[in-house]
Amino acid sequence: MQSIKSIQKIIEKELQQFFNNGYNQPANLYEPIRYILSIGGKRLRPTMVLLACNLYNENIISAIPAALAIETFHNFTLLHDDIMDNSPMRRSQPTVHNKWNNNVAILSGDAMSILAYELIAKVDIKYLKSVLEIFNKTALQICEGQQYDMDFETTADITVENYLEMIQLKTSVLLGASFEIGAIIGGADKTEATKFYELGLNLGLAFQLQDDYLDTYGDAQTFGKRIGGDIVSNKKTFMLLTALQKANEKQLRELQFHLNKTMIPDEEKIIAVTNIYNTLDIPNIALQKIDAYFDKSAQIVESLNLTQEKKQFLAEFIQTLNGRKK
Amino acid sequence: MQSIKSIQKIIEKELQQFFNNGYNQPANLYEPIRYILSIGGKRLRPTMVLLACNLYNENIISAIPAALAIETFHNFTLLHDDIMDNSPMRRSQPTVHNKWNNNVAILSGDAMSILAYELIAKVDIKYLKSVLEIFNKTALQICEGQQYDMDFETTADITVENYLEMIQLKTSVLLGASFEIGAIIGGADKTEATKFYELGLNLGLAFQLQDDYLDTYGDAQTFGKRIGGDIVSNKKTFMLLTALQKANEKQLRELQFHLNKTMIPDEEKIIAVTNIYNTLDIPNIALQKIDAYFDKSAQIVESLNLTQEKKQFLAEFIQTLNGRKK
Repeated sequence: MQSIKSIQKIIEKELQQFFNNGYNQPANLYEPIRYILSIGGKRLRPTMVLLACNLYNENIISAIPAALAIETFHNFTLLHDDIMDNSPMRRSQPTVHNKWNNNVAILSGDAMSILAYELIAKVDIKYLKSVLEIFNKTALQICEGQQYDMDFETTADITVENYLEMIQLKTSVLLGASFEIGAIIGGADKTEATKFYELGLNLGLAFQLQDDYLDTYGDAQTFGKRIGGDIVSNKKTFMLLTALQKANEKQLRELQFHLNKTMIPDEEKIIAVTNIYNTLDIPNIALQKIDAYFDKSAQIVESLNLTQEKKQFLAEFIQTLNGRKK
Repeated sequence: MQSIKSIQKIIEKELQQFFNNGYNQPANLYEPIRYILSIGGKRLRPTMVLLACNLYNENIISAIPAALAIETFHNFTLLHDDIMDNSPMRRSQPTVHNKWNNNVAILSGDAMSILAYELIAKVDIKYLKSVLEIFNKTALQICEGQQYDMDFETTADITVENYLEMIQLKTSVLLGASFEIGAIIGGADKTEATKFYELGLNLGLAFQLQDDYLDTYGDAQTFGKRIGGDIVSNKKTFMLLTALQKANEKQLRELQFHLNKTMIPDEEKIIAVTNIYNTLDIPNIALQKIDAYFDKSAQIVESLNLTQEKKQFLAEFIQTLNGRKK
């Protein structure tokens, strides 16, 4: 088994090698692609591909193209999402549409998604069709998730279930696909690969709910974002939707008051809504939900057809991703 | 051999079947896709795929997914190009970003490009890798062409050669790929398939230059667009770039005057620039260039390893596409 650090090193090197050889002209098409890939991120998804492969196969070279494809596709979705969300910054750097313009961002994103498929085309012919099918299905689901996310902004009566379905599409399925594709290329059988998909799905839900939780209850320093942003923007997260569901008439009026008024100072709104959350036990409900997804993940790891040593390695990797337990 | 009409009928039926079964929710993602596909177009590219296949194989069913993939991808590029060009109308109908909004147009375009790959994934495994590679290379070139096209708007000193390279990327390579992929799936050997690619490339250049020519010298009724649009918008077409290259000092001053002034009424500008074109023999130069590409196409058809009857069939199909000779 390669260490996670060594896997991450391989990813950085291979990403550089692929994108820094060729793909030069027109510069307005290819520079934004190198730019968004260079401003980092944790390379979580390609790490998951190579790790899953490595659990079944000492040789992970054959999984590199798929790992890069998934990282490329993920960054493409961020690039286009940033246009749609009108976000000026990402990872403390100007977004592509902000640094260049919308047209450059649309088109370089389009090119980036095609480059992801150029990488998929390098997958061993033995696995090409099945990897391509998983990749396509997942990519389309991510678009569906983003559309639901945008639709939800202007839709009343979104339920917690709607929200969970949306985040599953928007973020979890790609984690599922990363693990599954890695396992397939590593030579795992269908049952094992499907378990890996489920594992990624549960982790994705846990991560997203954790992100929601930390947005209100995290430490600004560790979280890396301003606390309370979701509350200020009325984002229909698990926390807010659960609160709306659980609130009595008086609490509901108070919540609605804060959601509808635009003249309240941000800090005041954050404190007021957080207080309602606290009264309704929302933080505990959220933590229980997150832990349930982590528990389910642990069960899936345990059920895999791997040595105890390898299961332990995988469990430890997952542990490092659990933001509250680092 | 199937008739062109029968091929076109198959395409319409199969497009409907693919896009009208499933792909329903979220509606804001999938409705725009059905919409842009429903407002027509000549289905030229999928016709080319099936025709090329049919020249080598009585059975064209196996080429249908690739044909639909190319039509889907083509319409995706139109959808995104319309956002970038800020075009309110296409084929006399509102464009997607105009009928919905920019975000819907970006995301449904993204989904559409993925759906093209879902169709590619249905290609027989025997040809999947090579078809996917051609498709990827072509798709990326189309993005490059669109970026050059946008770059050229704000770049001085664009040459005729730059322009020809740009239109080759933006429009011709997909016609080349349509023929080539069709031939490959039909079972043609590499030499034949490459010839088909070259054939599509030459036809694409001929069509685009013909479009440029007709934009100034066409008949508004048959051309379907207002005559002189390219002149009004200062579009750096083959005509304008050749004129700028051939003009003497006085003519150049006059041309530049019309390009730089914004206060001249459109009709006056069209007449003045057309007069300069006429003086410089631009219409004849353009027609010669177009005919050279059509002649080259005819030579390639002649060189194919097909019966005279089939060559004749292909030549007649090409003839129907020659706008001036209908």
